[in-house]
Amino acid sequence: MTETSLPALDPLLYRPAILRALEEDLGLAGDITTNSVVEPGARLEARLSSRQTGRIAGLAVALDVFRELEPGIETQVQCDDGSDVEPGATLAVLHGPARPILTGERTALNILARLSGIATATRRAVAAVGAYPTRVTCTRKTTPGLRSLEKYAVRVGGGLNHRFGLHDAVLIKDNHIAAAGGLRPTVARARGALGPMVRIEVEVDTLEQLREALEAGVEAVLLDNMTPDLLREAVSLVDGRAVTEASGGIRPDTIRDFAATGVDIVSLGWLTHSAASLDLGLDAEPL
Amino acid sequence: MTETSLPALDPLLYRPAILRALEEDLGLAGDITTNSVVEPGARLEARLSSRQTGRIAGLAVALDVFRELEPGIETQVQCDDGSDVEPGATLAVLHGPARPILTGERTALNILARLSGIATATRRAVAAVGAYPTRVTCTRKTTPGLRSLEKYAVRVGGGLNHRFGLHDAVLIKDNHIAAAGGLRPTVARARGALGPMVRIEVEVDTLEQLREALEAGVEAVLLDNMTPDLLREAVSLVDGRAVTEASGGIRPDTIRDFAATGVDIVSLGWLTHSAASLDLGLDAEPL
Amino acid sequence: MTETSLPALDPLLYRPAILRALEEDLGLAGDITTNSVVEPGARLEARLSSRQTGRIAGLAVALDVFRELEPGIETQVQCDDGSDVEPGATLAVLHGPARPILTGERTALNILARLSGIATATRRAVAAVGAYPTRVTCTRKTTPGLRSLEKYAVRVGGGLNHRFGLHDAVLIKDNHIAAAGGLRPTVARARGALGPMVRIEVEVDTLEQLREALEAGVEAVLLDNMTPDLLREAVSLVDGRAVTEASGGIRPDTIRDFAATGVDIVSLGWLTHSAASLDLGLDAEPL
Amino acid sequence: MTETSLPALDPLLYRPAILRALEEDLGLAGDITTNSVVEPGARLEARLSSRQTGRIAGLAVALDVFRELEPGIETQVQCDDGSDVEPGATLAVLHGPARPILTGERTALNILARLSGIATATRRAVAAVGAYPTRVTCTRKTTPGLRSLEKYAVRVGGGLNHRFGLHDAVLIKDNHIAAAGGLRPTVARARGALGPMVRIEVEVDTLEQLREALEAGVEAVLLDNMTPDLLREAVSLVDGRAVTEASGGIRPDTIRDFAATGVDIVSLGWLTHSAASLDLGLDAEPL
Amino acid sequence: MTETSLPALDPLLYRPAILRALEEDLGLAGDITTNSVVEPGARLEARLSSRQTGRIAGLAVALDVFRELEPGIETQVQCDDGSDVEPGATLAVLHGPARPILTGERTALNILARLSGIATATRRAVAAVGAYPTRVTCTRKTTPGLRSLEKYAVRVGGGLNHRFGLHDAVLIKDNHIAAAGGLRPTVARARGALGPMVRIEVEVDTLEQLREALEAGVEAVLLDNMTPDLLREAVSLVDGRAVTEASGGIRPDTIRDFAATGVDIVSLGWLTHSAASLDLGLDAEPL
Amino acid sequence: MTETSLPALDPLLYRPAILRALEEDLGLAGDITTNSVVEPGARLEARLSSRQTGRIAGLAVALDVFRELEPGIETQVQCDDGSDVEPGATLAVLHGPARPILTGERTALNILARLSGIATATRRAVAAVGAYPTRVTCTRKTTPGLRSLEKYAVRVGGGLNHRFGLHDAVLIKDNHIAAAGGLRPTVARARGALGPMVRIEVEVDTLEQLREALEAGVEAVLLDNMTPDLLREAVSLVDGRAVTEASGGIRPDTIRDFAATGVDIVSLGWLTHSAASLDLGLDAEPL
Repeated sequence: MTETSLPALDPLLYRPAILRALEEDLGLAGDITTNSVVEPGARLEARLSSRQTGRIAGLAVALDVFRELEPGIETQVQCDDGSDVEPGATLAVLHGPARPILTGERTALNILARLSGIATATRRAVAAVGAYPTRVTCTRKTTPGLRSLEKYAVRVGGGLNHRFGLHDAVLIKDNHIAAAGGLRPTVARARGALGPMVRIEVEVDTLEQLREALEAGVEAVLLDNMTPDLLREAVSLVDGRAVTEASGGIRPDTIRDFAATGVDIVSLGWLTHSAASLDLGLDAEPL
Repeated sequence: MTETSLPALDPLLYRPAILRALEEDLGLAGDITTNSVVEPGARLEARLSSRQTGRIAGLAVALDVFRELEPGIETQVQCDDGSDVEPGATLAVLHGPARPILTGERTALNILARLSGIATATRRAVAAVGAYPTRVTCTRKTTPGLRSLEKYAVRVGGGLNHRFGLHDAVLIKDNHIAAAGGLRPTVARARGALGPMVRIEVEVDTLEQLREALEAGVEAVLLDNMTPDLLREAVSLVDGRAVTEASGGIRPDTIRDFAATGVDIVSLGWLTHSAASLDLGLDAEPL
Repeated sequence: MTETSLPALDPLLYRPAILRALEEDLGLAGDITTNSVVEPGARLEARLSSRQTGRIAGLAVALDVFRELEPGIETQVQCDDGSDVEPGATLAVLHGPARPILTGERTALNILARLSGIATATRRAVAAVGAYPTRVTCTRKTTPGLRSLEKYAVRVGGGLNHRFGLHDAVLIKDNHIAAAGGLRPTVARARGALGPMVRIEVEVDTLEQLREALEAGVEAVLLDNMTPDLLREAVSLVDGRAVTEASGGIRPDTIRDFAATGVDIVSLGWLTHSAASLDLGLDAEPL
Repeated sequence: MTETSLPALDPLLYRPAILRALEEDLGLAGDITTNSVVEPGARLEARLSSRQTGRIAGLAVALDVFRELEPGIETQVQCDDGSDVEPGATLAVLHGPARPILTGERTALNILARLSGIATATRRAVAAVGAYPTRVTCTRKTTPGLRSLEKYAVRVGGGLNHRFGLHDAVLIKDNHIAAAGGLRPTVARARGALGPMVRIEVEVDTLEQLREALEAGVEAVLLDNMTPDLLREAVSLVDGRAVTEASGGIRPDTIRDFAATGVDIVSLGWLTHSAASLDLGLDAEPL
Repeated sequence: MTETSLPALDPLLYRPAILRALEEDLGLAGDITTNSVVEPGARLEARLSSRQTGRIAGLAVALDVFRELEPGIETQVQCDDGSDVEPGATLAVLHGPARPILTGERTALNILARLSGIATATRRAVAAVGAYPTRVTCTRKTTPGLRSLEKYAVRVGGGLNHRFGLHDAVLIKDNHIAAAGGLRPTVARARGALGPMVRIEVEVDTLEQLREALEAGVEAVLLDNMTPDLLREAVSLVDGRAVTEASGGIRPDTIRDFAATGVDIVSLGWLTHSAASLDLGLDAEPL
Repeated sequence: MTETSLPALDPLLYRPAILRALEEDLGLAGDITTNSVVEPGARLEARLSSRQTGRIAGLAVALDVFRELEPGIETQVQCDDGSDVEPGATLAVLHGPARPILTGERTALNILARLSGIATATRRAVAAVGAYPTRVTCTRKTTPGLRSLEKYAVRVGGGLNHRFGLHDAVLIKDNHIAAAGGLRPTVARARGALGPMVRIEVEVDTLEQLREALEAGVEAVLLDNMTPDLLREAVSLVDGRAVTEASGGIRPDTIRDFAATGVDIVSLGWLTHSAASLDLGLDAEPL
């Protein structure tokens, strides 16, 4: 990745998540193992490394875990978020007091492993799409409390973010249409109530619904649970009049057939609800 | 499960997690789709169901998501946490105002799907152990902010919880021993500093370390990354003098060989860091 | 307003603001006047009324202030948000224990008066636009901590909401263009980095910039600080290829000339940063 | 103002307000415009200036907004709170990374503009009082969540603060008297219940009530909605036995007639509920 | 106490303290004893009683602890705050599910025992004062996080509250005078900066300082660490021109000699920093 | 104490308690005395000292109070936590701006005095035990919101911590046994439900109960309210098969007789619910 396109993440967005994770681990008593057996003056060098092939995401977050415990820990970063690493690759080296390094280890690894797992899965999906112009996106099927970080990990993996929540874009589904009495009045009602910066997407299951959605003038259509063949027909029907999105149980190992249909976007809830964590480790040496 | 052994979960422990998840989804604008197209007076019946085979965990949490939005939603629970369900099984039926049901759907499903995924994976590990007396436990490799809920899901799956954090039990690892100058002084130091209700476990990689740990009088030994053969030898060496725990990359599909060694406990980080979510759905009908 | 178009506001979005406001007023000692002089058993009927002509917004929020102090207070609502009232109009009548009614009075009035002031100003701007199809919107110039409520008040006044924050839409200004090296690469960079549901608007000061923005294919243009004459020319130049927005020091009493240009949207920071509160009162009678 | 009399404001009192305001603007996605188009290494010089005549209040708060995003931003302050500025006056110059400066701009300006608007209005009221010894105070009609900052802005404008909430002084109104059965027993009850550091004020509408309040020995009287003529009579009747306060719909442009009556204090809710924001700007140049 | 003079305490003021205390006790795992051994359907009757002679304060707070865990617990209150009880006296009886009653027991008792301890000590001090008109007050030497509750307990004990914090009254000490250059300019500076509802007290050690304070026109004087004889002289010197307060190491068993001097107020930090908790118990019977 | 055995306390565990305490004192107006009379540029040297014989605990916490207000205050620590001091001993010296030192004084002293009072009482209990091998522990009878700090103070005093809450160890009492139908099934149920790191203790009143508990194989027995004679008999009966703990109304001045019985642990709720604060002072000199 060039520096410019490197996704950004403001520390204000994740500091509360770090503090919550540390509170879970420290409870009221703190790290009773480390505090009872390691001298306060002891110092360590610790190497943060990957034990699997994958793409790294969240390194700054992980290092901030340690600094939250002790600002004086020095960190040498050896790869950026977005780097693709092999087993054994060093991600960062820490020097500092032994206690906070040992205390922060699990919390830092938990966050970094999850985000890197998501970035790795996204990267795999993007690679599977290959030369097709289709873009990979995530969904709102994220871990409660970690949406901002997980959406970031998808960007690091080369994906795009779909809406961040119920608040920033309209996605009209069957239930909404049933409640409002038909697709066109539903779209019209949304259009009338919302400001100029809000896009409207409609979920459709059939080509008839798709035609109705296009007539209603929506900006995007979510083509739900369609086979690649039906999807291809749908994309052709849309013919550039709206953004096309395929969704429904698609995974990195099945995405290529969907991309081949010419659909603009494939969204995968799988990236955030079922991707495995990347296996990472922290190895320490006394100084 | 009998009622007695049903794991408990106090709502005080998870209400903040629900509120955080809803805040992520609502932002400042709320559910702009639903609020702009669904009449405030519209009512729904919604059926919460499973689309996969699995074990349910977190149903009360999911229903509390809806009640947090609107206390007047009525819920009919059709299975308890700990139930093993087939695809299509109804978990609960909701009746009430359409808006909060549609608004809460994704947040409720995200939580329930994750916890049920963990319970299902745990259940699978427990089933693989079969008649061996070995118990399955989780680790501290949990999702930041969800430890209490994920530990609960492991209990629902038939597993036990290992320590909840750095604060409630001692686990002495290599780094601690290196810093303190040997295993026996390390254990002695911890014993002297900590109160009567704290158990001490030591992580060992070899039979020599194991002997040293036993001589130091620890209550439990974590036998790290041992093959089943070596593990069997270690368990025999311990001979009931300490709780024995096997750990290190074990998964539900590999656990049986470890259980066959007679080890007391097998712990699996995989249950919480890499288990896939269970596929669930909410189907609504206007009333 | 018909029921359907009545703007919605989820109590989860404003409850923290109510609690913060009550905490400011109660401090550690509580309402020392009321608690020292009014008997705990005393009861009141209290009439919440307007002392000015205006549009009401936030009535449910104000009544929730009282209920936060004492759930047993009964409230009879006599007008809905969006009602246009005359001096003396009764908005709601409360019956209940005297202490919490007297304690909550100022906090409730402060919130309701501010939101109604914004709705009244918005209503005035909408009325000034009259039959022109131009829509009125607000900006991000809101009171810190009250954005969700103030955006709601604008909707109640008949306006639309522009973006809710830096997170839900792109608005490219001079500083961004200067930093990125020209308008077209700036737009291209944003387009490539952001997902399918994000709209892009560019702020332009001149017709040259406007042409460049249109060639870059943006969805909306903010025509900044243009005279009505120049604005009319700009709107004509756009010719429906993008949403047009006029902005810059416009107020309800000057908006009509801008609407007459055929611009799609006029945005007024004034609505939220400088509109006066509506004058309201609470008159109580012992029961 | 001399340094000594410069009002103080502890950062602990306002940091939560800054964080809340930034959270509103950043949401979960952060500043998507800046982060997608501005290089992380780009740097800016930005000049914070006034576009109106007015008195500045809250400059340290505004600059802390930027530092909360990025501690490395350098700020050169060119005027203090309490300075009276003309259009074009530079308030401060910032040097640093472009991204956090652009991201923090609106939040910083929103706070500074509101507080300076209040200070400017207060200054106007103080100037209108002129040589009369009457002091100007604010009320509890403040913006929910900003009371501490708005009370500070009033001090910067040359006003005094009336009570900060229901908790720090007694103000007995009609409703209290009705509930307690007469003015004298009401005052006696408050006097008996409250500690030695609490002052008691009574709101009176007529000279009869005023006489009764003076006989009850209160420390202050709020002379509510009196004409200047009646007010003059009331002040004469009090004759120094209590602090006299005029209140009720008074604004900077009407205050002088009230001050001419010799009343000690005039309180204006208008300063905080209806004063317009000061028009400010931030102009940036790439470095 | 008559109902009227019963001190008030708004639940909004103490709910966060209850939640914090429960969080400390529940951690992430909850009440592992109760949840693992008591059936969810088991029910209890539990009697909350005193094991010592003392005055009860905080009963509503203690009962809210249980209701926070389970709103369905029924409570029969058998004495009010302010009641003086003998060993064995029943304070309240609870009926409801066994689990939340057992879980909440310690948290409820901890709060009630501390507040009742303070009320009992205050009551003892008030009784020691006897027929003298001197009033007993507390100080700011309270437990961090419990000031509101502890000040309430003092009121329940028959004492008055001195200032609640640094924010609601002025108390000028030696350090302030040294920094400002003399007592009179210090008082003048405070008077000029602060609003009409703030009282000023000065701490004095000698009769000379006292004379200076009276000449400066302060509303109250804190006569610090004076012997009863010197205090009597000081009170005589003041002769009603200011509130007189004795302070410095006074305890319930030494207060009477100070009261005999005619001083208006005696303040005791001891009430909140060193009073012992009252011994209470909860006895449960299965239903 | 040697450095190694010095109890540890992570600042993350107490920072919220400091902020809460400062918020109580500052309210919305801040330190109105200091801010109105002390010049912003004034500087102080302040000596923190003890006025009583005792053991110091919480010095780092107290100094962090000042640093939270102003990071630039310099502190010279002259004794460590765990030091036994005489009246007049200097604990630390501060240099810095006068305002934050004066503002933080009471909050810092309140925390340090309480923790040192607990450490002093614990130290007294440990000294009374003398050469007996019995260890002193605290209970869950701590101040709401301060458990982590108070447990730390007990460690500083030479005591051990019993469980930190309901979540980290099992203590089975009468009520649990009654609810579960006998001691042995109760213990078995707990054993089956809980993980390998949780210890089980049972409270017993009689030797019969004790025998039953030992047969159930518990790790510890709480011998409740036994006389030293009965306790001696109980300890002899246990004969090393479980940890023995004496509890019930024991205080530092009565502990020795219990220690003489050979019991392993004596727990004293008195240490945290009724120990008096240590008398400390802060004396400032202008610089």
